[in-house]
Amino acid sequence: MTSLISNLTGRKLAAVVGDLLDTLPWWSTRRDAKGGGPVRAADLVRTVEALLSRRGEASGVVLARLVLDGYRACDPEQKTAFLMALAEFFGIDEAALAAAAAAYVEDRSPEAARRLRDASRPRNLEVLRRLNLAPGGARALVRMREDLMDRLRDQPRLAALDDDFARLFSTWFNRGFLTLGHIDWNTPAAILEKIIRYEAVHVIEGWDDLRNRLAPTDRRCFAFFHPSLPDEPLIFVEVALTTAIPDAIAPLLDLTRAPIEPERASVAVFYSISNTQRGLAGVSFGNFLIKQVVEDLRHELPHLSTFVTLSPAPGFAKWLARERADEASRFLSAADRAALTALDAPDWHHDPAKVEAVRGPLIAAAARYFLVARREKGGLVDPVARFHLGNGARLERLNFLGDRSPQGLAQSHGLMVNYLYDLDEIERHHEEFFEHDRVAASSAVAKLAEG
Amino acid sequence: MTSLISNLTGRKLAAVVGDLLDTLPWWSTRRDAKGGGPVRAADLVRTVEALLSRRGEASGVVLARLVLDGYRACDPEQKTAFLMALAEFFGIDEAALAAAAAAYVEDRSPEAARRLRDASRPRNLEVLRRLNLAPGGARALVRMREDLMDRLRDQPRLAALDDDFARLFSTWFNRGFLTLGHIDWNTPAAILEKIIRYEAVHVIEGWDDLRNRLAPTDRRCFAFFHPSLPDEPLIFVEVALTTAIPDAIAPLLDLTRAPIEPERASVAVFYSISNTQRGLAGVSFGNFLIKQVVEDLRHELPHLSTFVTLSPAPGFAKWLARERADEASRFLSAADRAALTALDAPDWHHDPAKVEAVRGPLIAAAARYFLVARREKGGLVDPVARFHLGNGARLERLNFLGDRSPQGLAQSHGLMVNYLYDLDEIERHHEEFFEHDRVAASSAVAKLAEG
Amino acid sequence: MTSLISNLTGRKLAAVVGDLLDTLPWWSTRRDAKGGGPVRAADLVRTVEALLSRRGEASGVVLARLVLDGYRACDPEQKTAFLMALAEFFGIDEAALAAAAAAYVEDRSPEAARRLRDASRPRNLEVLRRLNLAPGGARALVRMREDLMDRLRDQPRLAALDDDFARLFSTWFNRGFLTLGHIDWNTPAAILEKIIRYEAVHVIEGWDDLRNRLAPTDRRCFAFFHPSLPDEPLIFVEVALTTAIPDAIAPLLDLTRAPIEPERASVAVFYSISNTQRGLAGVSFGNFLIKQVVEDLRHELPHLSTFVTLSPAPGFAKWLARERADEASRFLSAADRAALTALDAPDWHHDPAKVEAVRGPLIAAAARYFLVARREKGGLVDPVARFHLGNGARLERLNFLGDRSPQGLAQSHGLMVNYLYDLDEIERHHEEFFEHDRVAASSAVAKLAEG
Amino acid sequence: MTSLISNLTGRKLAAVVGDLLDTLPWWSTRRDAKGGGPVRAADLVRTVEALLSRRGEASGVVLARLVLDGYRACDPEQKTAFLMALAEFFGIDEAALAAAAAAYVEDRSPEAARRLRDASRPRNLEVLRRLNLAPGGARALVRMREDLMDRLRDQPRLAALDDDFARLFSTWFNRGFLTLGHIDWNTPAAILEKIIRYEAVHVIEGWDDLRNRLAPTDRRCFAFFHPSLPDEPLIFVEVALTTAIPDAIAPLLDLTRAPIEPERASVAVFYSISNTQRGLAGVSFGNFLIKQVVEDLRHELPHLSTFVTLSPAPGFAKWLARERADEASRFLSAADRAALTALDAPDWHHDPAKVEAVRGPLIAAAARYFLVARREKGGLVDPVARFHLGNGARLERLNFLGDRSPQGLAQSHGLMVNYLYDLDEIERHHEEFFEHDRVAASSAVAKLAEG
Repeated sequence: MTSLISNLTGRKLAAVVGDLLDTLPWWSTRRDAKGGGPVRAADLVRTVEALLSRRGEASGVVLARLVLDGYRACDPEQKTAFLMALAEFFGIDEAALAAAAAAYVEDRSPEAARRLRDASRPRNLEVLRRLNLAPGGARALVRMREDLMDRLRDQPRLAALDDDFARLFSTWFNRGFLTLGHIDWNTPAAILEKIIRYEAVHVIEGWDDLRNRLAPTDRRCFAFFHPSLPDEPLIFVEVALTTAIPDAIAPLLDLTRAPIEPERASVAVFYSISNTQRGLAGVSFGNFLIKQVVEDLRHELPHLSTFVTLSPAPGFAKWLARERADEASRFLSAADRAALTALDAPDWHHDPAKVEAVRGPLIAAAARYFLVARREKGGLVDPVARFHLGNGARLERLNFLGDRSPQGLAQSHGLMVNYLYDLDEIERHHEEFFEHDRVAASSAVAKLAEG
Repeated sequence: MTSLISNLTGRKLAAVVGDLLDTLPWWSTRRDAKGGGPVRAADLVRTVEALLSRRGEASGVVLARLVLDGYRACDPEQKTAFLMALAEFFGIDEAALAAAAAAYVEDRSPEAARRLRDASRPRNLEVLRRLNLAPGGARALVRMREDLMDRLRDQPRLAALDDDFARLFSTWFNRGFLTLGHIDWNTPAAILEKIIRYEAVHVIEGWDDLRNRLAPTDRRCFAFFHPSLPDEPLIFVEVALTTAIPDAIAPLLDLTRAPIEPERASVAVFYSISNTQRGLAGVSFGNFLIKQVVEDLRHELPHLSTFVTLSPAPGFAKWLARERADEASRFLSAADRAALTALDAPDWHHDPAKVEAVRGPLIAAAARYFLVARREKGGLVDPVARFHLGNGARLERLNFLGDRSPQGLAQSHGLMVNYLYDLDEIERHHEEFFEHDRVAASSAVAKLAEG
Repeated sequence: MTSLISNLTGRKLAAVVGDLLDTLPWWSTRRDAKGGGPVRAADLVRTVEALLSRRGEASGVVLARLVLDGYRACDPEQKTAFLMALAEFFGIDEAALAAAAAAYVEDRSPEAARRLRDASRPRNLEVLRRLNLAPGGARALVRMREDLMDRLRDQPRLAALDDDFARLFSTWFNRGFLTLGHIDWNTPAAILEKIIRYEAVHVIEGWDDLRNRLAPTDRRCFAFFHPSLPDEPLIFVEVALTTAIPDAIAPLLDLTRAPIEPERASVAVFYSISNTQRGLAGVSFGNFLIKQVVEDLRHELPHLSTFVTLSPAPGFAKWLARERADEASRFLSAADRAALTALDAPDWHHDPAKVEAVRGPLIAAAARYFLVARREKGGLVDPVARFHLGNGARLERLNFLGDRSPQGLAQSHGLMVNYLYDLDEIERHHEEFFEHDRVAASSAVAKLAEG
Repeated sequence: MTSLISNLTGRKLAAVVGDLLDTLPWWSTRRDAKGGGPVRAADLVRTVEALLSRRGEASGVVLARLVLDGYRACDPEQKTAFLMALAEFFGIDEAALAAAAAAYVEDRSPEAARRLRDASRPRNLEVLRRLNLAPGGARALVRMREDLMDRLRDQPRLAALDDDFARLFSTWFNRGFLTLGHIDWNTPAAILEKIIRYEAVHVIEGWDDLRNRLAPTDRRCFAFFHPSLPDEPLIFVEVALTTAIPDAIAPLLDLTRAPIEPERASVAVFYSISNTQRGLAGVSFGNFLIKQVVEDLRHELPHLSTFVTLSPAPGFAKWLARERADEASRFLSAADRAALTALDAPDWHHDPAKVEAVRGPLIAAAARYFLVARREKGGLVDPVARFHLGNGARLERLNFLGDRSPQGLAQSHGLMVNYLYDLDEIERHHEEFFEHDRVAASSAVAKLAEG
């Protein structure tokens, strides 16, 4: 409660808030007791009710702030209780909905449709909308949903509330409200620190590593921002400008490499893309970000002709292990399986003989992993492939031992992938992918899969 | 279509858009023909369908831009046709809704509720959401709703679509997404020009008049802005800092008056508040704006003790005429009626005898106009009073001949009103107003009404 | 003294200033007396002495503010007295300078040179430097010099002080410290208002006229700013983008004309350039501004191929009158003189016959006015021509009746001139102009002069 | 030459520069040869001559850029040669100066004085002024002076040029042109990185240490910036807000301490102040910075009552060693000397007995070090004391073992000093210090010195 207490103490508080708060004794107590006891969910719920009430309309901003500050001060147990209360007390009124449904079945008038629609909306949508009256409301609600997601497994009854959050957020964080920001070495440290923290693909080892990804003339970083969270990049992509499609990550991140003049580059490599706000799960940004960045880079640097990723294949090693264990695998021949035993040696990638033995079978298996293999419930096995191919990109090249880091070896035996974004083709690829389950691939990769 | 044509011509267009557009021949034709013929609603509708389609997902930003640019280029008739199409083809699916309603009546499962809720949402909500993918989408949609409002009277079937716009806008333009901006003489001319244009209460006569309301040390102007319309003040309020509650508008706007040091002021007068975006009708800003400005001014100038409006009474003259014509009026005695005949003389306000004769009865009638009179369908007669008293303000003082301008004389015989904002009391007033139809008034005004 | 008094009253003042001020009773009196009597130059001079003193070093900022605020509050007479005192009491110490000069003649050591140099610098340079310690000091000193310039004619002893101001300003306002700003319709009104006020060539008739010069897509305006006067454009140039070199001003300023797309323009026309700060006389900005704008426009709009002015010829009519009166004129034949009598008819430019009679002789005379005629003390007669040709531009075309406004007719019988800036040639032209008194001209104009 | 070559290649260069460059073959060669051979001082000197010439006036900006870029590309030897050439070829003309001096001795007219003054100004002042025409000129000249200072010891003939630089810089970097900037965790990383690099008093160990000095609510950092070097803090001061005058540095820098609410602080501690631009040596900023920060903090946090430093005493250990070695020392008694031998034990500060033995004599010696001891050429021994006491601060307290870091122990046996800034007293202290060589000290410290 610090922020509210420190900003609105004593007489000033009374003056701003009016007498409604006198009906919320939990708050008055805390105010007098300098922090008071723990905040209880029941008190917050009462405040939410005040916020929805007639009198609450006149003091919405203050009440919303009170709920959000109070929630922040709750211990985990009370947070759970509050979220459960939101889900249950402020959900839909089933009886009212049933009545409206029955009425519509009788009489399909627009008015009846409107009443049915209103009855089908849970009250907590209105709660969330009013909580956003408070300054910083959207941010606080994103954090609240993170708490909710942590509890989903244990409290399945929270699922509908989570769904309400997700719907509301996809309206609030609509592409039209996002702005593209350039992240570079002149960006405030408070934002850069988050880039370090949120980078999910190739860990940033500290500020020198960060500078090396932002400051050189042949590096770029772009992020989407929302006006309500001006210091939080929602998603960001790191870009390297190069003269050829890269086949390994290490040279790109090398602290000692010499940068090139951007005018000499023909390739833009998206080598890392990271979502940052767990609380915005289900709101998709990546697709828009990549396409916007392609457009902007083409405008800034007309000589760029190729837009490509250098991506991990996080599901590959696990899948391969399964197939190697399955003697009836459709994807591996006995010879392949034999050759791939070299992978079981601890430092196989340092042994040239093992490397050569593994190369062919591994790449061929990878081609089938992407082009042929599917999950039981359908869809590509690899989540990164699902993302880029779903965006309409093409599977361009498979890079053997492109990532020799422990993580890279563990998750994909070092395999890295280039996905190519050709704006002329993305709609077609996108449609073929979703409508016909066909993966767009370069002929080289397609051939490997057939082999 | 200028903006799209000029930005995306020739090869560049093809590169950005992909081949989906080839299926939209209206567009290709226009492109070749340098402007081509008029845009037809049918073409736009097909493009909206593409936008909602699977392939459209991959090119949403471009398709949305195409629809919005195309719409802008339509003639009024085609605009009507397009809006009608939106309302009819992209409304709810009645059969599906009826089925979902029936299913819920059978089985009140959460899943059935969710399906019912989805079925009750018209498809055009998704259309509007996707149109907002385009840069400038929100602004274009606000303009589109203005067109829609112009057609509502003639095309009542548009009402549901208008309702959809209004709901969506109240989510998008939620208080939490607005920022308070200071308008002063350092504000860009492009914004100031809109202040001149949008001022609805006391016409701004030009740039000198404007400067006189913004530049002096004892004047302030505040506006709400939304990040999607950064150069459009959504609502603004003009404030004068004074040493006493003013009883007339002319001295406040006098170009020759001497400003005072703001530190010497004890009263902040809200003498004009104007909404600017007709297309945002139904989204309420005024209440939040006034309260935010009160809070900010109190912080900047702690000596301010009184926050009050100087407001017109736009419905008074009309109401009074009706009552004067009604011999059975509850609000006017025969003596009052006799005295008020002086108002019928053309320049009565220049005749001291007439002025004195009218003063008492007119003010007493005004007190009853606000405190006692109601519309047939209920509610105060005066729209400005409904706004301020609904916000929780108090009717503080009635000012005889406070506005001697032709407009002021015509609409209220010169009457002006001070509404007082006391943050300690607004919740109570607000509740009494809405729950018990009781108007908060100073004892002086209350006494007048009794007389 | 308002600003200081209001910012630093009572105890706060004492706290900030220290006890030095107690030795400056003029100030203490004023402080107590709420404005007190008029400020006297003698008091200011004592404060300047304090500012130069040992103790003054520790409170330089406050003392400087005191002098500048006090000066601003002086009446004109006391201002004169103060400026005279600056010139006389804080000039060079002649005896010391003579001694240092004699010493150097004896012994040309670096140390003696340094002492001589120090002795040759008037103390008021240090005064001005210290006055600039105060916030807003540079601005106040520019205003002070304006006062000084107003008094120069009556007080020739101020000339040396004026020279000191000019030297200091040309260091402070060095090109390297200026920034180029774009003036457009998004510029703050407080700056635009100055553009209206300062426009010296083609009067801006109000805000509509201004918008017409700034907002259309084919108009530009650039200004130099100095960080110390962030809201004062020091010099600005108005630019029109056109498809041909214009021969008249009226079509450029026409409020009803249709703008063109900037990409279609091949010509950038500098049709007005105005210095704004009289107090910065002698510091040259125009040369740098035009060249910078040419460079920037070329970068923004690569299709621009021609950079040209449309300029007045303010000295032409006066010169022509003199030559017409001089029967021995080298520039006019008897036939010319006869033809030019048509100019004496009041509305000759409305009479087609007169217009045709005048056209040839007038243009030929104009060609000689620029190419051949010189002032007695040397140099071109026309000040605008001196500026542009001195910058290295070429005299491109003479436009008969290019400016039919009363001012245009009065000063040049309507003549307007295009000067062409070709960056490839400006050095050569510049050198020829200054070293050999040769004016660069197009062959057409050169031929006219020979005629 | 990278920047010029890359910005102005091929035809574009010719277009911008004109034909003057054809006379500078060094440049043309380099341009063709893609970097060419090393730049030679002789070529630069010729370019400087062009810059001063008549034709050079028309292309000043480009020529200045050429010189500065060329200089940057020089190897150290050629840099020396260029600086020597500047000093010698562009110094004063001794014969002309002697003549002007003689003339003035004859005739003390204002005109003769002006000629003498002009003759006494070396030409390289004009060179430096014109080099500042280039974008980034001021920054490049500051760097050039750093090179010059590196060569001063070996090339005493550069002293006059160094003096010219210093004079020019003290005009350019006049207090009136500086702006105070807040450095915090929202400052761009490119600036923060410089804070880390330039911190001269208590080394910043990395970004965590930096965040700990900037981000907490009770920490502040202020810097002066000049518009010409917008990303270079010229000087900065780190401030801690505390509830008491601190006597040791370690608790202030502790990464684990809990911050306090700034409103609770009564003391502002300036615990580190660092100049950053070696090339601006001789231009004093510190005095102005501290006083400005005091004023600003007092405005932001009216509860602050004490402004004090926590400073090192970098000359103390060396001075004490000398005195201990001098049996006739005026400052140490034999007993003191005996007690202080404990300092010679390597880890004396970990031995409570030694610490207690040393405490009294060391503090007493320190008091005499500040109050009584003087350098042979006069003035306080301690440079930090000279700075703060010269600013008018008071020697408030001596802190035994206030800095237990190796550097602190080495330079001052751990002694730290609080200097107190009382704006009411600084003028008096400043004057007493400079005029009467009297150090302002608290009575406690004064007493110690007498002991």
